[in-house]
Amino acid sequence: MYHHIKKLMYTVKVGSPDPQFGNMLLEQFGGANGELAAAMQYSIQGLNCDDPDRKDMLMDIGTEELSHLEIVGTLARMHLKPMKKNRDSAEADPLIAIAGGGGVGLFNSMGDAWTADYLKITGELDVDLRSDIAAEARAKIVYERLINFCDDPGTKDALQFLMTREITHMKAFTAALESLGKDRFSIGNIPPTPGLVDEYFNDSTGVGDQRESDARGPWNEGGKWKIVESPELDQGIEGRSGKTVAKNDKPVSEETGKIRVKKSA
Amino acid sequence: MYHHIKKLMYTVKVGSPDPQFGNMLLEQFGGANGELAAAMQYSIQGLNCDDPDRKDMLMDIGTEELSHLEIVGTLARMHLKPMKKNRDSAEADPLIAIAGGGGVGLFNSMGDAWTADYLKITGELDVDLRSDIAAEARAKIVYERLINFCDDPGTKDALQFLMTREITHMKAFTAALESLGKDRFSIGNIPPTPGLVDEYFNDSTGVGDQRESDARGPWNEGGKWKIVESPELDQGIEGRSGKTVAKNDKPVSEETGKIRVKKSA
Amino acid sequence: MYHHIKKLMYTVKVGSPDPQFGNMLLEQFGGANGELAAAMQYSIQGLNCDDPDRKDMLMDIGTEELSHLEIVGTLARMHLKPMKKNRDSAEADPLIAIAGGGGVGLFNSMGDAWTADYLKITGELDVDLRSDIAAEARAKIVYERLINFCDDPGTKDALQFLMTREITHMKAFTAALESLGKDRFSIGNIPPTPGLVDEYFNDSTGVGDQRESDARGPWNEGGKWKIVESPELDQGIEGRSGKTVAKNDKPVSEETGKIRVKKSA
Amino acid sequence: MYHHIKKLMYTVKVGSPDPQFGNMLLEQFGGANGELAAAMQYSIQGLNCDDPDRKDMLMDIGTEELSHLEIVGTLARMHLKPMKKNRDSAEADPLIAIAGGGGVGLFNSMGDAWTADYLKITGELDVDLRSDIAAEARAKIVYERLINFCDDPGTKDALQFLMTREITHMKAFTAALESLGKDRFSIGNIPPTPGLVDEYFNDSTGVGDQRESDARGPWNEGGKWKIVESPELDQGIEGRSGKTVAKNDKPVSEETGKIRVKKSA
Amino acid sequence: MYHHIKKLMYTVKVGSPDPQFGNMLLEQFGGANGELAAAMQYSIQGLNCDDPDRKDMLMDIGTEELSHLEIVGTLARMHLKPMKKNRDSAEADPLIAIAGGGGVGLFNSMGDAWTADYLKITGELDVDLRSDIAAEARAKIVYERLINFCDDPGTKDALQFLMTREITHMKAFTAALESLGKDRFSIGNIPPTPGLVDEYFNDSTGVGDQRESDARGPWNEGGKWKIVESPELDQGIEGRSGKTVAKNDKPVSEETGKIRVKKSA
Amino acid sequence: MYHHIKKLMYTVKVGSPDPQFGNMLLEQFGGANGELAAAMQYSIQGLNCDDPDRKDMLMDIGTEELSHLEIVGTLARMHLKPMKKNRDSAEADPLIAIAGGGGVGLFNSMGDAWTADYLKITGELDVDLRSDIAAEARAKIVYERLINFCDDPGTKDALQFLMTREITHMKAFTAALESLGKDRFSIGNIPPTPGLVDEYFNDSTGVGDQRESDARGPWNEGGKWKIVESPELDQGIEGRSGKTVAKNDKPVSEETGKIRVKKSA
Repeated sequence: MYHHIKKLMYTVKVGSPDPQFGNMLLEQFGGANGELAAAMQYSIQGLNCDDPDRKDMLMDIGTEELSHLEIVGTLARMHLKPMKKNRDSAEADPLIAIAGGGGVGLFNSMGDAWTADYLKITGELDVDLRSDIAAEARAKIVYERLINFCDDPGTKDALQFLMTREITHMKAFTAALESLGKDRFSIGNIPPTPGLVDEYFNDSTGVGDQRESDARGPWNEGGKWKIVESPELDQGIEGRSGKTVAKNDKPVSEETGKIRVKKSA
Repeated sequence: MYHHIKKLMYTVKVGSPDPQFGNMLLEQFGGANGELAAAMQYSIQGLNCDDPDRKDMLMDIGTEELSHLEIVGTLARMHLKPMKKNRDSAEADPLIAIAGGGGVGLFNSMGDAWTADYLKITGELDVDLRSDIAAEARAKIVYERLINFCDDPGTKDALQFLMTREITHMKAFTAALESLGKDRFSIGNIPPTPGLVDEYFNDSTGVGDQRESDARGPWNEGGKWKIVESPELDQGIEGRSGKTVAKNDKPVSEETGKIRVKKSA
Repeated sequence: MYHHIKKLMYTVKVGSPDPQFGNMLLEQFGGANGELAAAMQYSIQGLNCDDPDRKDMLMDIGTEELSHLEIVGTLARMHLKPMKKNRDSAEADPLIAIAGGGGVGLFNSMGDAWTADYLKITGELDVDLRSDIAAEARAKIVYERLINFCDDPGTKDALQFLMTREITHMKAFTAALESLGKDRFSIGNIPPTPGLVDEYFNDSTGVGDQRESDARGPWNEGGKWKIVESPELDQGIEGRSGKTVAKNDKPVSEETGKIRVKKSA
Repeated sequence: MYHHIKKLMYTVKVGSPDPQFGNMLLEQFGGANGELAAAMQYSIQGLNCDDPDRKDMLMDIGTEELSHLEIVGTLARMHLKPMKKNRDSAEADPLIAIAGGGGVGLFNSMGDAWTADYLKITGELDVDLRSDIAAEARAKIVYERLINFCDDPGTKDALQFLMTREITHMKAFTAALESLGKDRFSIGNIPPTPGLVDEYFNDSTGVGDQRESDARGPWNEGGKWKIVESPELDQGIEGRSGKTVAKNDKPVSEETGKIRVKKSA
Repeated sequence: MYHHIKKLMYTVKVGSPDPQFGNMLLEQFGGANGELAAAMQYSIQGLNCDDPDRKDMLMDIGTEELSHLEIVGTLARMHLKPMKKNRDSAEADPLIAIAGGGGVGLFNSMGDAWTADYLKITGELDVDLRSDIAAEARAKIVYERLINFCDDPGTKDALQFLMTREITHMKAFTAALESLGKDRFSIGNIPPTPGLVDEYFNDSTGVGDQRESDARGPWNEGGKWKIVESPELDQGIEGRSGKTVAKNDKPVSEETGKIRVKKSA
Repeated sequence: MYHHIKKLMYTVKVGSPDPQFGNMLLEQFGGANGELAAAMQYSIQGLNCDDPDRKDMLMDIGTEELSHLEIVGTLARMHLKPMKKNRDSAEADPLIAIAGGGGVGLFNSMGDAWTADYLKITGELDVDLRSDIAAEARAKIVYERLINFCDDPGTKDALQFLMTREITHMKAFTAALESLGKDRFSIGNIPPTPGLVDEYFNDSTGVGDQRESDARGPWNEGGKWKIVESPELDQGIEGRSGKTVAKNDKPVSEETGKIRVKKSA
């Protein structure tokens, strides 16, 4: 159950409305990394969650994001309000001006309607927490960019509050993930194929004498890493094609990519 | 520049086509966590990336995902092919049957057209890598679910190959992120507000005698964490509203949520 | 500010899970006339609203709809849960099964992601209230259809609760609209053109001897109504084209539809 | 069957093309409340309608809206035409300029492609008529805003014609709804639960001493209304949870929201 | 201006309703290659067209497609009607059943809302005619597939009528394109670069000994064709990079893809 | 399998970044007729294709389009880069600036996310080739418009390269279609109804004395063409309604459009 309190979580003061900036603010209202996306992602993950403790955390944070949605929507509305009467302002966001009368709607800065396609919900708790950590990192950088393009002190204050809370949530999600005590590359129950899992395919290479000059780093050397050079060009990875045959030992069909070559009539 | 080699990265064998399963496979072809999403997310992050080493990695992996797209598309097509002639099969995915003639298209299992709204690209390398780690975790669990619903050995082999590679990529992205040497809660350049960043808001609570019984864990206790109980209900967070005043010391407008209350006529 | 209480607004009991019905229930979770659509439409109208009393009502009802979203999501999840392990169940909604692990997501019964395109928000209070009355009528009929296709008593109980509340809200919105004291065909400030506003254009007619046999009712006869017969076919409505000429008395261009006719080479 | 007559329903004169205004006009061509939305909503409701008289009305008005689509498209095209050759003009709507060569397409002012998600069609006549009344109210206010941002007299004339017709249609739909003779809060066949239907939940409240100060109006007091104060916070609505038990008297599962609370490891 | 006549262009008879087939029929009602797509594509191309003769043709055919939309919608509705009362039928298309009450909506067979993204409108007449020829070919093959999955004679009759008309339109569009008298590879005004335009890049090749075995046909040999073997792998196409230098003879930036290679720390 | 080479297919030089033009360039990156649409349409048609020779061609060209995507993305990024730091530039595309940090994403010039709804894939080779010819014609004209709005010589060079290749592909697709040796109006296997296929319906006419003055051309006269004048208005096409009756000689329902007419109560 939800209850609404008629007070913003952070008091919003706008010195001088800036409709172009109000338009930009919509990224955090109805945009891909905005507050509705955060609120819905965490709350619905919470609804699906069977772990009561982390479900509680998902609901805590999901609910806080609803309060943030209200703050950023109020901020945007204050900046966009001149659109109602002023045609120059209206050009900054004709959808808000003409269809919305200057009021906010669930759109991003380019007028795209919010869509649940933005959300990442898998019903697997540790996977969802990884998606949430990434979501908070994205939200943080978006608030930082807004602050950098803003010169109204009151607006910056509110954005600093909201930006800070994203880091708070990022910390909480990280702690919750780690408290599950799983190996960090163990997802689900079926283990990856040993050996194959440590092969790094060098699928993007230089030309000519740059052929061998690709970057090396801890993502492809050291530990168990084994680099496989341009498997497409050189040898293919034929040996990897598995040993299982179909029930009747004769597959209905097999596609190896060895396409018949003939001269077209 | 791209080059295509007429050979699948993993040879595909299908013993007995299963159109319903072919429909499910489309999740990894044109779905939210599928191979096109992976290929595009990493390749475009790579295109935007100014760090040549990690750009190389993003292009390596982005390109491998294109080869995966081809594998999973071929698998799906082999399972869906009976749709072309058989009405019962066609009912498993009428869009593929009627509009596609049994051939695959960039749709998920419910016929939703692939959309770039699935992608997470911010132009901030460490943020993008977090999104990529989460994306690989999601892709892994989806392949596991497909394997669990499949009983064709050849298909399972190919899915095991693809699933394994997601873990490979998850490891590479994690190593690349860590090699950047940044504090893991430091995103961008503007620091969060000290103090506020360590407050955990308890925004979801029990009723009556359950009021005080919320879950505790490393995500809200220990270290610097300070729990703020139900800020909405009890005291609000008035003191947090910032000290900056607008240029002329009189904000154009201020919204505190203290709504005037009167009896409606 | 929002607060969440860890208790459903209506206790949900499911005797026997029915995944196909769980899929249908998603219409009221992530569908066009569902609870998220209601919650967002009213809450954002409330955020934009300058009339404090009706704003309060919009927030009351918008918040209640969030609690409904939680109920219907919990119901759907209980019916969909068998999908996680059972392939036959999974076929009822492969997106929920494969991508969601049996958990709910913001989709309708056909897997379409929720979109803010479902919302009707104009920033004009009386117009918004008309949209809200219509929205509640739609939600009511959808719940009724779900009840008719359901045979689990516990589920029916919860749906009856939710359905009843839609009528409650429909009554509240209607009273709020009427309390504004406006003429019910007066929208905005610019009056419609007298005379023209009372003309009913008969744009759909029978053929041959049915030409004159169109339906008559209070929507085109009585009061001030004047029927204009097939304006397209008979005389056009040339005289209506307005008297204002452009500033320089010579319009840059004028399109009358009188297309030049010549024999093509 | 449809027939097209090569003459606009209202002659269109444009004194001086204004590409920015042409862009705004697209709201009524391919936008959410525009003429295609109106034409499709009424015509398809008509196609589904079993009541021959009101079906006739839906087809009359749906057809008139097609003629309006042609008018507003012609107007927009005249204002957008300079885009074809002039780069400054093109910046007002690069999609129209680059992809459309200055010609109109089914987009709104922010380039969003028209979608049937805008439509409200339920197959229940009285519900559909409520959606139509609301749709006409929205269209009217959008035309008014366009008129307010326009200073070309010929364009204003045409917009006044179109705006007036929306009121005409609103009157017709209202008369048609009332002529059905149904109680205005009776939707479908299943009655709402008595008592519960008259309870107004006060789900949005002030803080502290404002707790009791919510707005009162005919939407929550008078008649049968009974206000239920903050059901979430105070007592829940336990008693409302229904009496039906599942067939075997032991529900498979029950979710009350009373979440088990324990200290996380 | 449009006029509607209350008679279908082709009388529709349905012997036995088949809801699953009704669902499939929606591909031609609200699907990507369906009748609304055709009606809108041609009519809006017509609205934008400055050539009065071909504009007339676009309006003739666009209007006929509206009449087809009505036929296919009526057919679909007759097949879908059992959904209103019968749960088994409802499972064939829960969106139509639950949200639409068994009436049709602008969706395809998988419930995707119709979108103007399906349309191809460029404002360049000869280009548009090519898009129209392709659109008719697609619509024809979709009708053929529907006929093949249908066993109701009356329905097949109507589909044969509609399928035939697509060929009629394909012929008309082809004749109109050819009557323009343009070279068939001449689009717009800027000529392609001589030489380069005749090079066929062999970007997809076999592996190992299959390297030289690609297909040859009139699309890459004969006439002026010159095959360029795997430009990516072998020599790049450096010489093609253009000779123009930026104004100040020093481009602000240049991207050659020659990425600096160093060992990552 | 795909391989990526770290070199652009065409070296890109930008003299002076022009963010507004960078925004326009996105039409060819993530727009409806852009390079990703081309790459995906041809490559997936190729994946579905059973004709090995033309499959080879589809893969050749599909792969080349991926290389074009990389070129146009690099170009756009160079023009958009000032957005990262400069607010004025940011206003040219706030989505790229705020959410993308100045990096490109799969959006068009109006911020619409790329969608597979842009693609035309039917699994019928000759039909697909027609769609491809049209797609290349559209891409050509879009590049021409971009060239016309660009004044940076290096950018124009690269666009001329890309534009030229579209004509190359258009020629290849045309040759491939013709080499199939099919009658050009023969699609699929079911023949159209003789006679009916040659009737041109004059569904759009003038008013009054213009009634008979419609355009004539090779699309409706000459050869076998027979013009049917306004079938809707004059005689209907009753005789065409097919002779087949339903199995039991009594159709369940029949819709002729002859709507019962009575006076509404």
